[in-house]
Parts: sequence; structure tokens; C-alpha cells
Amino acid sequence: MEKYEGKAVFGGIAIGKIKVFQKEEIVVKRKHIEDVEFEKQRFEDAKSEAMKQLSELYLKAVKDVGKAGADIFEVHQMMLDDLDYLEYIYQLIENQNVNVEYAVAMAGDNFSSIFSMMDDEYMKARAVDVKDISERLIHILSNGKGMSKLEEPSIILAEDLTPSETVQMDKEKILAFVTVKGSANSHTAILARMMNIPALIGINIKIDDLLSGKKAIVNGNTGTFYIEPDDETLSENMKQQEIEAEKKRLLETLKGKESITKAGRKVKLYANIGSISDLGSVLKNDAEGIGLFRSEFLYLGRNSLPTEEEQFEVYKRVVETMAGKKVIIRTMDIGADKQADYLNLEEEENPALGYRAIRICLDRPSLFKVQLRAILRASVYGNIGIMYPMVISEEEVDQIIEIVEEVKKELLDADIHIGEVEQGIMIETPAAVMISDKLAKKMDFFSIGTNDLTQYTLAIDRQNPKLDKIYKPHHDAILRMIQMVVDNAHREGCWVGICGELGADTSLTEKFVEMGVDELSVAPALVLTVRDVIRNLI
Amino acid sequence: MEKYEGKAVFGGIAIGKIKVFQKEEIVVKRKHIEDVEFEKQRFEDAKSEAMKQLSELYLKAVKDVGKAGADIFEVHQMMLDDLDYLEYIYQLIENQNVNVEYAVAMAGDNFSSIFSMMDDEYMKARAVDVKDISERLIHILSNGKGMSKLEEPSIILAEDLTPSETVQMDKEKILAFVTVKGSANSHTAILARMMNIPALIGINIKIDDLLSGKKAIVNGNTGTFYIEPDDETLSENMKQQEIEAEKKRLLETLKGKESITKAGRKVKLYANIGSISDLGSVLKNDAEGIGLFRSEFLYLGRNSLPTEEEQFEVYKRVVETMAGKKVIIRTMDIGADKQADYLNLEEEENPALGYRAIRICLDRPSLFKVQLRAILRASVYGNIGIMYPMVISEEEVDQIIEIVEEVKKELLDADIHIGEVEQGIMIETPAAVMISDKLAKKMDFFSIGTNDLTQYTLAIDRQNPKLDKIYKPHHDAILRMIQMVVDNAHREGCWVGICGELGADTSLTEKFVEMGVDELSVAPALVLTVRDVIRNLI
Repeated sequence: MEKYEGKAVFGGIAIGKIKVFQKEEIVVKRKHIEDVEFEKQRFEDAKSEAMKQLSELYLKAVKDVGKAGADIFEVHQMMLDDLDYLEYIYQLIENQNVNVEYAVAMAGDNFSSIFSMMDDEYMKARAVDVKDISERLIHILSNGKGMSKLEEPSIILAEDLTPSETVQMDKEKILAFVTVKGSANSHTAILARMMNIPALIGINIKIDDLLSGKKAIVNGNTGTFYIEPDDETLSENMKQQEIEAEKKRLLETLKGKESITKAGRKVKLYANIGSISDLGSVLKNDAEGIGLFRSEFLYLGRNSLPTEEEQFEVYKRVVETMAGKKVIIRTMDIGADKQADYLNLEEEENPALGYRAIRICLDRPSLFKVQLRAILRASVYGNIGIMYPMVISEEEVDQIIEIVEEVKKELLDADIHIGEVEQGIMIETPAAVMISDKLAKKMDFFSIGTNDLTQYTLAIDRQNPKLDKIYKPHHDAILRMIQMVVDNAHREGCWVGICGELGADTSLTEKFVEMGVDELSVAPALVLTVRDVIRNLI
Repeated sequence: MEKYEGKAVFGGIAIGKIKVFQKEEIVVKRKHIEDVEFEKQRFEDAKSEAMKQLSELYLKAVKDVGKAGADIFEVHQMMLDDLDYLEYIYQLIENQNVNVEYAVAMAGDNFSSIFSMMDDEYMKARAVDVKDISERLIHILSNGKGMSKLEEPSIILAEDLTPSETVQMDKEKILAFVTVKGSANSHTAILARMMNIPALIGINIKIDDLLSGKKAIVNGNTGTFYIEPDDETLSENMKQQEIEAEKKRLLETLKGKESITKAGRKVKLYANIGSISDLGSVLKNDAEGIGLFRSEFLYLGRNSLPTEEEQFEVYKRVVETMAGKKVIIRTMDIGADKQADYLNLEEEENPALGYRAIRICLDRPSLFKVQLRAILRASVYGNIGIMYPMVISEEEVDQIIEIVEEVKKELLDADIHIGEVEQGIMIETPAAVMISDKLAKKMDFFSIGTNDLTQYTLAIDRQNPKLDKIYKPHHDAILRMIQMVVDNAHREGCWVGICGELGADTSLTEKFVEMGVDELSVAPALVLTVRDVIRNLI
């Protein structure tokens, strides 16, 4: 049995097999080889495999995005047959007795720097492609690092995980996260809380593919990670797991009950969703509505903007599924750590303080209008609220209202029906807090995004592990801001929710109720836990 | 005459010769050449020059940092004589008929990727060196881009300017800044305000060395840039310049007078300094003290930490020069856009929300103590205040006080005298604003750093030109925060100043006086302008 201690960022116990997630980046080493013919055969095999992958990608892309978007894979195939490129690789292997991975890497570097120095724009753009091809070959030669499909429920073990890496994982099959790096506020931590599975960071282990398949225990209560646990440890942890399962069963009895204190104060208990696949969990956990529908998932991981029709179908489906319960859709919060290449956003020195969310929408109203049209069209199928992220001024709210009115008029002129929608803003900048009295006059509701609000108020990037020590989510400044927002909002008849991480922090639930917070929107899996706390308040 | 319109970030008129500042980065283009011998000769010449430079650097480094630190330049010389490297370049020129710049760039790329893929750590480290050498050669071949010493007062014309670029310029000889890029809140803009010289951004001109030496006019009132102006334009601008000079002469009469409103309300009018060379301007403009001594200049642009003795000498000199007037020293604000390599700070995703200022000091108290010892020792020579940047919590203030007490005790134990010092914090995070009532109990004064405070409150990186449109320094949220801080501070007998850009914004001076702000600390060149405004308030 091996035992590692780390920092638990979410509790619970998971028992299962390890699945190692390796970064895509592969370090190529120069090796001296004797068997030149063998090395050349390895290259030929890798090349055939790459050709096969490219053909498949081409067909998939034609179906997904049409012929124009798929052409690039044909170009890649042609480049892979380029004689100069092939000869360069063969010569390195033959004359210098180097391994094929090294030869391919050198070819990629060399040809891409030659291309990038050319004056012709078309040829310049090929620099990226030749790199891509070489990386594909190296990837194949390295037996396809990264992570294959999860065959069975597994404990994900990785150096670190980024949003783009986890987006592709089959969430249903993840038992726990264990990472070497990462901060208490990192993406992995948030995801674990969202999925209600244990997660450990700071586990000092050498990541090795050989660990895949080994049995392990993740104890998110003690922060311990066991590999090939002995019988005693296993039975102890199974006992703990059973106790937690029992607690969960007790929570199940709260389904269908109200979220109400003993004194009769009702709190709207909603759920946050990050993709349409979370809907099942929302229903299963009996959330009273959706308090934060992160619409940016519609924009991420694709090559072009989602059309009005695509968006409309998704909103309609969510709203219909919720059958009359409130669904608050946040307009796209792209930028910062959520990037969509096709928007061509420039790199920024401080993306968290950058061009993102409503700033992009107001700067590119045509893009914003597509989303608004889709939401408004879906509004006849249920009870929709629209929420705008990153607002800092009255001017922005005025601009938003004006655009929404324009879109409504366009729809009405085209005889398209729309329902009643509430409009609100995220309170996630200190500026919005300080002028919440003025903003409340213009909006129906506020939802306090405590994650970003804390980040800006404390001037701490929550994903920076160096600052974990001083990142205090319960900081007085934040609690005072929440009180200020609630007071200002209520004076103008505006209701206030909390949809950030703090909303599900049960050590604060009582305080929030005292403060007058009207709604809490939490990860679906935490709805019943928070309901239990509310029902036990006096 | 050529005429360009841009955005003025500081007013005034400058007339003089252009000096073009080119980025060090040079784009190497592949060119076909016929005269191979000529190209080879160009290479030989560049190589000799590089050898000469390296010898000089070696000698300078031996003197500055000792033999061990100088060895690298010997290694570079050896590499420049490496036969493989030389042959690679010659062969490219001879066989492919390419220009020498291209051949050198390819050699640099190739050899550095070969080195970086080696298993040996020593050889791996050489990857950077071979790049360095190639860059030096290309630099020489491109006739030494960058900017040579300013021979005469000049208008600096550049694509964009970073702090590390301007730090090396001879400020006495700069008449104005004109840049193609840059935001209204960029470093260039701040520097111009500090130096009280006109500055234009967004001038759509192709930067070309040939512009150097041409006569030009920078009109910071209209945002216009004229190259080789005609006589009429010249005489008009000279007239305007004379009117401004006259205004300046009138302001001179305010020297020695109090900064007091007609109703008798006195305001402390201090100056900000960013280096010891600003002291002359402080005296010349009759500032009543130094409200912000940016001590980080002692830490930047060098290879190791400044010693206690070095710091002590500087503080002593400033304090003595100010002859009993208040000197508020801000402890080092390193991090974010001010980096010191020897501190080995990791790269951060969002440096403005990162590991900086007091966060570094409290994390590395031994480093902090050196600065505190130097300041406390200097305190016997005058009237010192110590100010701590980026504070967000009471815990931090408690830690600071504890460390200061330790240092005081150490000094007293060693029979070293110290004077009375006031202690205060920068209010530059929304967190500090929200808990300013609590912080005021622990400190003697506050100084509101409006630049960072606005950045965090609005969640806008002030250096990001994409957000200039929505960056509103007069935002209600900021003004309300200032009022909140003043009220909280005065309740605890703590005085409050403003040392950010807003302090010198004369459209707000009246408001600040009404709010009860006790001190304004502004660029030395603006002291008399602000005094004039204060004396005209009722």
C-alpha cells in the first residue's frame, strides 16, 4: 500500500481504479538508434495511422461544420505526403542515426520556421499546419498519450487539469480527482464540488501511466490518497463511505419538501448548470429552478458561433424540461479563462481584468442579438430570466435594455411570440456593488457571483496557487458587500440571489438568510444538503 | 508637412527633432542574394563586432559582478567560434543563396532546438546562449536597432513603450512621447503626466528609422502630430507654446504660498517620486512633502537585491534633502508589471491579481526586514512615514506591525537610533475600502491609490487598450469608496490622502476638499497647478 497526503478541496470517499491523465505535450528526446530500417518502419506505420485519422476527421468535420471547415484536414494529408518533408525525416534517421520522434520533431520545427519566414500569407499560415502534423505523428509514436475513453468509473490522476481538458471527459464515469498541482480554487476544485465527488490537490506523486488500472482510495475528508490499499484501510474507508451514503439517503427524504426555515422564511433554492447534461441532476435533486445557466458552454469547444436556431433548441429544451420553474440564463461569459478561438480575441496581460462577457457583447451587438433572439423566442415555452455578467455601470445596463428592446421589436414585427422575462445582472464587480442602489432601479433581480467578486475585491486571482493562503472567501469585505447589495436591492423591490461558490457554503447559510438573501443557486448535487440546513434554521 | 491625428493623453506643446525608438525584436526575412562573397563578408564583419562587444561586456561584468558572473560572455565568444555553427551559416549562404540574417536566424533556431533536446543539463542551458549569439549578430547586421543615447532634447516616436524600455532613457532629454499603440492609461501616459510633457497615442504612422532627426510638433492639446511643419503651423504652435509658458510663469508666483482654500481649509500638497532624480523637481515646484516615494526603483533594473546600506543611503539623502518635510516611503511594490528577475517570481496568468508588493514582503520577511531597517535607520534624519501597498486584511496589518516591532527592537538592541515614524497603508483594493473602519484603528494614515483601486473595482486592466472606452476614472463607485474611506478614517483619527492619478485631476479637487481629503500627492510638475486650484476654492 502506498499512502499520500494532500489537500482535500472537496470531501467524500471514492474507491475504484486509477486512470492517469497525461498532458498532450510530449517531451521528445534525442536517442541514438542502430536499427535504421526498424526506425523507418515505425515512421511508415505512424504515417499510415495519421492518414487514417485525418480521413476520419475530414468526414466528421464535413458533417459537423461543412466542407469549407473540413478542407484543412485534406491540406494536412497533402503535407504529410510532401517529398521534402519526408526526405528530411529519412535523412536524419539514416545519416544521424536518430530516433524517429526526434527526426519528426526537427522536421516540424524546421519546416514551420521556414514557412513562417516566408512573405506569402498563405505559406505563412502553413507553419502551424506542419507543426500540427508533426505533433500528430509524435503523438501516435508515443502510443497516444492524453486520456483514452473511460471504460469504467475511475479516479482521475493528473499533474493538473485545465477546463479544456476536463471538457472532453465523460463526467458520468469520474469517481474522484487527484492532482499534483492546482489550487483550492482551481477549476478541478470547482468541478469536483459541482459533481459532488472527492478531490485532492498537492498529492506529491510521480505521474506514470503504469498507475492506470491500480486500485485506489481517495479520502476527501482526511485528504489521503491510497494506492493498492491493504484490507484494513479498505474496510475502514468502505465503512465511512457507507455512512455517507446513509446521509445521502436521508437527504433523499427532503425531495418535494419546501426550502423553508422553522420560522417560515422561504428561500428559493435553485441549481447552477454548466451544460445540458446537468439537467438530469437538477431534476434528480429537486432544485426549484435554475439560478445560473452558464450559456457559454454553447460557445466553447467548437469552430464557429452557435446559430440562433441551435441556441433556441437548447434553451427551449431546458425551459420545457423545467416545466414552468424559473430558468435564469446568463448571457455568454466568454473571455478570461474561457476562450473561443473563432472570436479572435487578442491575448491579454491580465485576462481576468480584460475583454470578456458583456464587454464583448456590447462591443459586438450583432453577436449579442443572436443570443437574445434565441432566448426571447424560447421564453414562450416556460419561465425565463436573462442575466448579464460583468456589468460595471448604469450606461451598460442602459445599452443592454436598448438592445433587448430592439430585439423584442424585431421579433414582434416578424410575428414571433415572446413571453414575459425577468432581467437581472450578476453582481460580480466591486463597482456594481457600490452603485447597486442605482442598478436596482433598472433591473428585476441581482445574482451575486461571489467567485469573481472575491477575486476583484481581494485583488487575488483565485486560480493562482501562490495566493491560496491569503484568499479568504469569508472575508468581511465580501460579507459586507453582500449586505449592501441586499439592502440596496430590496429598497427598490429587486430580489437578490447568490450563485457563486459561497451560495453552497453551509457555514454561511444562516447568515445569508439573516441578511435577507432571497435565493441560493448551488451545484445540483448540493441542493438537498442546503435544503436540510435551511429547514433546520430557526 | 505631414499631419497625423491621435489621442492626447497629456497636454502641452513640444517642438523639436524626432528620435525613433525601435523594438529590439527584429523581423528576419528570407531574401534571395546573388553576391555570396559579399554576404559572407557581411557575416565576418558582424562576427568581429560581436566579438568586440562580448569582450567589452566581459570586462564590464567582471567589474560589476565579478568573474563568475562574467564567464557567460566568454562562453558566448567560444560558441561564436564553433565550427559547426559557422559551417551551418556558410552552407546556407552558399548553397541556398539566402541573406546572412536569415542564415544566422536559422542557425540559432536549429542549434538551440538541438541543444534543448539534449539530456545533459549543461548542454540544455546552452540553447538560450546560442539564441543570444544569433540575436546579437542579427542586431548588429540590422545596424543596431533599439535607441542610442539621446544627443539632444527629442520627441520620442515608437510603436509602443514598456516600463523596461523607458527606464533606460535619459528623461531630461525627452520633449514628448508619440506612440502608435498604447492606451490612455498606459505606462507612457503616466510617465508623460509625471514628466509634464505632451504625449499622443494612436498615431497611425509607419515607424521608420528615417524619421529620426526630422523636425516635428507634438500638440497635446489638439492631439496632432506634425512632421516637418510648414511655417504657418510652426508659428501658430510656437504662439500657443508661449501662452502656456506664460501660464507656467504665473504659477511660479505660487511658490512659498500655502495650499489653502479661501475659507481657510488647508490641504497638504505633496509630490510623488519614482526615483531620486525627481527630487530636483520636487524642490523646484515647492511640494510640501513627498506623499509617495516609490521605493521599487531601488529594486528594478539590477541583478540582485539592494543592500540595507545602499537603501539607507538613498533614504537618508531624500529625507535630508526634504529638510524636515514629510517623506512617505512606500515599501517595495514589485510584481505585476514591475518585475525583478533575481526574485525568481513565477509567471502568472493574471499578474495584476498576483503575487506582488506586501504579499511578497510578508511571504519573505527577511527581504522585507532589510528595507524596514534601512528606512528606520534613516528616520533620525528627518520626518518619515512608511506606507504598505496592496493590503487587504487586518491579519496583514497585524503581521506588518509585528515585523516592524521586531526590527525596531533589533535596532535598539544594537544601539542604533531611530526616529518617530508614522505608519499607513495604501488603500488600493476594494477589500481595504470595505474594512477601512477596522484598518483605521491600526494605522496613522491612509493613502488612496486610485489607479489600482479603479482597476480592481471596475475589473479593468488599465493598460488594456481594448477597454479604454469603458475605463471611467470618475466612476461613482470610486468616488463613493473615497468618501467611505475618509469617513471611516476620520472617525478613528486617521488622516487620508490620495496619491493615485486622480489626486492631480483638477476637475475633482473641489470634490475631494468637500469630502474631507487631507492630502493630495501629485506629480512634482503638477504641484503648483493643483495649488492654484485649491487657492481659488471658496
